[in-house]
Amino acid sequence: MSDEIIVGRNSVTEALRSGRSINKLLVQDGIKGGSIGEIINLAKEKRVLVEFVKAEKLDQMSQGIRHQGVIALGAPVRFYELDEVLEAVNSKGEVPFLLLFDELQDPQNVGALIRTADAAGVHGILMPQRRSCPLNAVVAKISAGAVEYVPVVKIGNITQTINDLKAKGFWIIGADMEGTVNYFDANLTGPIVLVIGAEGKGLGRLVAENCDSLVKIPMSGGISSLNASAAGAILLYEVVRQRKINTK
Amino acid sequence: MSDEIIVGRNSVTEALRSGRSINKLLVQDGIKGGSIGEIINLAKEKRVLVEFVKAEKLDQMSQGIRHQGVIALGAPVRFYELDEVLEAVNSKGEVPFLLLFDELQDPQNVGALIRTADAAGVHGILMPQRRSCPLNAVVAKISAGAVEYVPVVKIGNITQTINDLKAKGFWIIGADMEGTVNYFDANLTGPIVLVIGAEGKGLGRLVAENCDSLVKIPMSGGISSLNASAAGAILLYEVVRQRKINTK
Repeated sequence: MSDEIIVGRNSVTEALRSGRSINKLLVQDGIKGGSIGEIINLAKEKRVLVEFVKAEKLDQMSQGIRHQGVIALGAPVRFYELDEVLEAVNSKGEVPFLLLFDELQDPQNVGALIRTADAAGVHGILMPQRRSCPLNAVVAKISAGAVEYVPVVKIGNITQTINDLKAKGFWIIGADMEGTVNYFDANLTGPIVLVIGAEGKGLGRLVAENCDSLVKIPMSGGISSLNASAAGAILLYEVVRQRKINTK
Repeated sequence: MSDEIIVGRNSVTEALRSGRSINKLLVQDGIKGGSIGEIINLAKEKRVLVEFVKAEKLDQMSQGIRHQGVIALGAPVRFYELDEVLEAVNSKGEVPFLLLFDELQDPQNVGALIRTADAAGVHGILMPQRRSCPLNAVVAKISAGAVEYVPVVKIGNITQTINDLKAKGFWIIGADMEGTVNYFDANLTGPIVLVIGAEGKGLGRLVAENCDSLVKIPMSGGISSLNASAAGAILLYEVVRQRKINTK
């Protein structure tokens, strides 16, 4: 379950075409023409983030293999499509429960949250392709293997995805220190997307504006914030609690 | 807020006598007689763990200062007495809420739990002097400074402490994967001690036997356990939730 580095134009093109899950495409600065343009288009079509880097970085990463100006970073697990996840929930007859990471970048937190999400019965984790921690071997290890169980969906535009899900009847619950209601006073029993923001920064403005409800965790002590993985664990299990209590 | 190393017989004796918080006393293997015996007795009286080590270890740690066969490792914060903590809760008129670590050794988990405990309004954290992670600079950093706010009490015999607290009206709630009741079905509104065990191992047998109730966190996914700090966060905030709901 390690990260795979895919080097060179043919290999990268094949990997993209095959639908293999790619965290990121690295393209050499200033390089142009021929198949590079096609590769970049293909990456965009597959919603893979493209980053331009210096030739030296590619030289170093490719360890002697001829990179031809392009390297793709493979993910240790395959990514799912949102529709696949929703169909799976549907066929199980369960109330959908999704988790969305908003600019969460610390692999420790991402891995820990995937682990807790698995335990809480989350049906899918939505990770924006931009400004997210890549789903790499470190995250996989910290998740204690849970990346193998919880489907991860890469999403393009967060606002767009949120609106699509709202149209499907989802309630979007954002975790925010400026939230208007304590998390345990919110009704979390319907189809929901729980949105967790970056530690320190919280939710992005636009994302917060698009949530149906912003919930907060009451704080009693001397420090001003919880760790993102602790906050996430508390919220994920409040969903579990409310649903178990309600189905008794 | 770094760890302090106290070197030599006079300095160590003074540190112990002054009531300064000490994580551990290191004594050179085979050394005997004179003030060393008195220092060891003093350490025992102050409930400081004594460890016998090779002379080379002390030579290395003392960095040229003459150690005379003894080094004490100071804690970055002062330890509290249990009575102090109980009196403080009493004077605030709050329902006591204590957290006990049973052989929790990972500084990441200990630091993270102290941070969440502060936020949840825990009145004191009980750490057994044996087989605990020392309260060092790493723990202090991961706690995001919460070690400055939540009183930490070093305890000697866990069973003895549990029984003393039971006699004072506390309910001892152990977190255990083999627990008989889901944590949200337990009543956590009275004076309680929440006991969290080591990751992987769970609670020690004797500790589990002495709990009034063993609660479990229901698991829905593919992995079999939660991280100790995530499990702790879920349980700590269930106490908060029940108490807030009950005082409405």
